[in-house]
Amino acid sequence: MKIVVLDGYALNPGDLSWAGLEALGEVVVYDRTPADQTIERVGDAEIVFTNKTVINKEVFDACSAIKFIGVLATGYNVVDVSVAKGKGIPVTNIPTYGTAAVSQITIALLLEVCHHIGEHSKSVLNGDWANCPDWCYWNSPLIELAGKTLGIIGFGRIGQETAKIAQALGMRVLAFDSYEVEALKSDTLQYVSLDELLAKSDVISLHCPLFESTQGMISKSNIAKMKDGVIIHR
Amino acid sequence: MKIVVLDGYALNPGDLSWAGLEALGEVVVYDRTPADQTIERVGDAEIVFTNKTVINKEVFDACSAIKFIGVLATGYNVVDVSVAKGKGIPVTNIPTYGTAAVSQITIALLLEVCHHIGEHSKSVLNGDWANCPDWCYWNSPLIELAGKTLGIIGFGRIGQETAKIAQALGMRVLAFDSYEVEALKSDTLQYVSLDELLAKSDVISLHCPLFESTQGMISKSNIAKMKDGVIIHR
Repeated sequence: MKIVVLDGYALNPGDLSWAGLEALGEVVVYDRTPADQTIERVGDAEIVFTNKTVINKEVFDACSAIKFIGVLATGYNVVDVSVAKGKGIPVTNIPTYGTAAVSQITIALLLEVCHHIGEHSKSVLNGDWANCPDWCYWNSPLIELAGKTLGIIGFGRIGQETAKIAQALGMRVLAFDSYEVEALKSDTLQYVSLDELLAKSDVISLHCPLFESTQGMISKSNIAKMKDGVIIHR
Repeated sequence: MKIVVLDGYALNPGDLSWAGLEALGEVVVYDRTPADQTIERVGDAEIVFTNKTVINKEVFDACSAIKFIGVLATGYNVVDVSVAKGKGIPVTNIPTYGTAAVSQITIALLLEVCHHIGEHSKSVLNGDWANCPDWCYWNSPLIELAGKTLGIIGFGRIGQETAKIAQALGMRVLAFDSYEVEALKSDTLQYVSLDELLAKSDVISLHCPLFESTQGMISKSNIAKMKDGVIIHR
């Protein structure tokens, strides 16, 4: 069985092993694949792994041996799944590998806006606090999150984990998702319409997949619905 | 009644009002008070407010009109409370005003160590991500907190709030405090001895008051008990 990994570098820059895959067949791993070499490199492989290399109709049509596409990431917008479906080719993604990491960095980005910690730390090391006549020292206004409202667009695993951290920080969460999980609703977490989320949130964080329906969601018309001073993360 | 505020600037740099205090008596507010002017400024005041100005035995002995000391902060190590007790002078502090803010900045400091968000952001704005051949980009190693252990020394209000956020981030919490709250114990939160906390924590955060018993707690001998690579916050 021929197996090709089109862009393995981001997943495995050298600290992981491909041995599990090599046990299943003849494996060729490319660090990166430019778009104009995708068809040539897939060739007659039956199993194709991609992280961000686009597998469109042209590739499916030219590479008729494909039996399986494995996306080495969460977002699968790089694969034309309707073509894959038509040909009966299964496409898998890895929806959970980054749940903790992405929710953590979402909050880290938010806290950077609230504290500018790195700059503050540099300023303190520079002696600015020691030379300050007061015991209190800050070099940019601090934002306390407790009591503020976080709007989360796309309330899947990552959105939900982000909400947990935000709630622990004392924030109220407004969630927008086509599917509502009853058990998550609480005094500090409500599902609302997109318009209500835009109007009431102090911070908005996007955790939805890139679909046609979500592309360009932070548009001029939607920004106009937000209150002043909203912080947006993606 | 004479009321003196010895160092009001940190509490009220101009955005708050002293009117509530002025309704109670004759109020004099100083922005800051150097140690050698404390006795002169307290003078025959009955009510003394301090934030960080030290009220020691010398001040109590020289200023015999003092009936009440209000500390405009949480830590009350600036007041010699044993002398105050001996003279029957009540000393108050404000233990709760900063609970959310301090636990938030504790986590912000930790996330800065994990992500160097500010530097990363600058690097991205500088085009380093756009020019990176891979979809993934980082300029310093990232630390995922989920599954790691946070040791909290001093498990009062701020320590407990910090623990909640850490638990939401997927961390396990080891708490050290002379007083244990049964209801807080869970699969992800245990009370342990100081030695066990030092030995098992990936991150150590101090949230105890400054007492004689806690001063110098992060000593050479205690650092020697920690595992490699521990992050310490205070």
